[in-house]
Amino acid sequence: MKLEIPKIDMELKETLQHKIDTKTKPLGALGKLEDMALKIGLIQNTLEPELKNPTILTFAADHGLADAGVSLYPKEVTWQMVMNFVAGGAAINIFTIQNGIKLKVVDAGVDYDFPEHDSLISAKIGRGTKNILETPAMSRQQCEAAISKGRELVALEAENGCNTIGFGEMGIGNTSAASLLMSKYCNKNIAECTGRGTGHDIAGLNKKIEILEQCIQKHHIGNDPIEVLSTFGGFEIAMMCGAFLEASKRKMVILVDGFIVTSALLAAYAINKDVLNYCFFAHQSNEQAHKDMLEFLGAEGLLDFGLRLGEGTGAAIALPLLQSAVNFLNKMASFESANVSDK
Amino acid sequence: MKLEIPKIDMELKETLQHKIDTKTKPLGALGKLEDMALKIGLIQNTLEPELKNPTILTFAADHGLADAGVSLYPKEVTWQMVMNFVAGGAAINIFTIQNGIKLKVVDAGVDYDFPEHDSLISAKIGRGTKNILETPAMSRQQCEAAISKGRELVALEAENGCNTIGFGEMGIGNTSAASLLMSKYCNKNIAECTGRGTGHDIAGLNKKIEILEQCIQKHHIGNDPIEVLSTFGGFEIAMMCGAFLEASKRKMVILVDGFIVTSALLAAYAINKDVLNYCFFAHQSNEQAHKDMLEFLGAEGLLDFGLRLGEGTGAAIALPLLQSAVNFLNKMASFESANVSDK
Repeated sequence: MKLEIPKIDMELKETLQHKIDTKTKPLGALGKLEDMALKIGLIQNTLEPELKNPTILTFAADHGLADAGVSLYPKEVTWQMVMNFVAGGAAINIFTIQNGIKLKVVDAGVDYDFPEHDSLISAKIGRGTKNILETPAMSRQQCEAAISKGRELVALEAENGCNTIGFGEMGIGNTSAASLLMSKYCNKNIAECTGRGTGHDIAGLNKKIEILEQCIQKHHIGNDPIEVLSTFGGFEIAMMCGAFLEASKRKMVILVDGFIVTSALLAAYAINKDVLNYCFFAHQSNEQAHKDMLEFLGAEGLLDFGLRLGEGTGAAIALPLLQSAVNFLNKMASFESANVSDK
Repeated sequence: MKLEIPKIDMELKETLQHKIDTKTKPLGALGKLEDMALKIGLIQNTLEPELKNPTILTFAADHGLADAGVSLYPKEVTWQMVMNFVAGGAAINIFTIQNGIKLKVVDAGVDYDFPEHDSLISAKIGRGTKNILETPAMSRQQCEAAISKGRELVALEAENGCNTIGFGEMGIGNTSAASLLMSKYCNKNIAECTGRGTGHDIAGLNKKIEILEQCIQKHHIGNDPIEVLSTFGGFEIAMMCGAFLEASKRKMVILVDGFIVTSALLAAYAINKDVLNYCFFAHQSNEQAHKDMLEFLGAEGLLDFGLRLGEGTGAAIALPLLQSAVNFLNKMASFESANVSDK
């Protein structure tokens, strides 16, 4: 798969930095907000960036590996939580409403027949992936269909005026898929990539590592990003991979959530490294492996809140910080306009 | 000075924790947001806390020590920035408007005659403090007047329905006062308490440390909190000390900003340690000494953004995170209400 992602035009950099530096504050005194303002200005190639119609797409799917007992929760929690999203009762609903973010829930491949609902997008690739202990999670064709669908969904948002997007996920068993993907994309031992998921104790964690080690042993595959993704991924992860690629192709501001979302970004990054130029990392989660993913990408989370819920919740609570960056750049007075003496 | 701060009633703790734990998420998966929700619930002694009329009071004053060259900026920047606050052009204006926070600016002792303005509270204790190289910054009487005024201003906000409050400051030279206070209250060497302020280079920093060392040598005082505050503090800092005491006495949720605000909290803490039970630390600033202050208080900042602007900006950008904590507690479905299977 070949996909063009536009390079960042650096021509405005100096002018943007000058605009930041002449605001009524000591040089650099707004810390990370200044870096964020600069990056957003460069992405949008303007001195007056705007975050338009911020949107979170939360992708849900089931995982065959859940049957092997990698999660503390039963598999039906995936569809139950999707119904909870649709009913407005989940954390992601609360945080997106609070922060003025549009939420769309995508059925990327849940093993359940949902009733039709305005806020639920049906994009089922299959009724859950296969059990990776036995066969690849999905066929290459399914993987490519999921990537295409993710691209299509982001394209639709962009065409409706959204330029700021985050992704979230729900899928019992998907931390296991994320660990397997991390192991391949980052070339790390599976034990280093595996955490407690929704709350395993040490015995549960060891069992999970053992199962994942068996998955790795079962599939002797190369480094082709799509082969890795189809063997070890999930429908929601493959769809997010496509979503990242399309969002960066369209020069959108992208808010990256936690461990599973970042595993999808690893896949997109393996396809085209330029995706990173459009990403802001909302938080670093409680999973050590997520911190290691961020290190692999040379990135740092904005928040360090010990979150490990998924759904896009980290992206949702971090959005006001991006908005603060844009607001100071657009609205603060300069030393000159406010008649304040510079040093 | 003796002041009663109510103890936190722990009776609701178990019920609150149960409410948090039965939300549709894995146990503990919202990390720090869960700790914050619990603390706010306990402060307000309710299962349904609310952040009412969040307000930031930004206190400004001048410092005699500025004449000794401790700051990169000329002293008139204090009044010029107050005019900038009043005109709505400063960072604190932008962030408070963004996050629905009421801002009030308090002239605690600026060396300037301001025109009357609705959003500027005149509470001048004097036209700047004295030069600490020569005499105590203020008299004990002035210090007590400033503390009383701070208490009165917070009481007024509380009576008008505010239960969530943050403080900010502006005053050329006030990082020096904060360093001196930290040195006394935390019993640390002045060099450990001194940072680059608005942006000193190494030579500037060394000169600042030398001047502050002379201030310490000049005044041989004991540990009486008010004596320390009147010798080394500023009018805005003493006023914030009173503001902290009154806000905790009234069981308000308090958002602590950066280095100078925290120096005022050190004074309040020296008077009554229970003030801490009501405090949330918005951020840890770029100043190493601020990190050490937080460590002294056993606290951790919510954000680590390298901010060093003051004005209350850290408190203003952190408020949505407190709101997220309250919102999930009040609005998220439980496993039972959403018909989701628990593990």
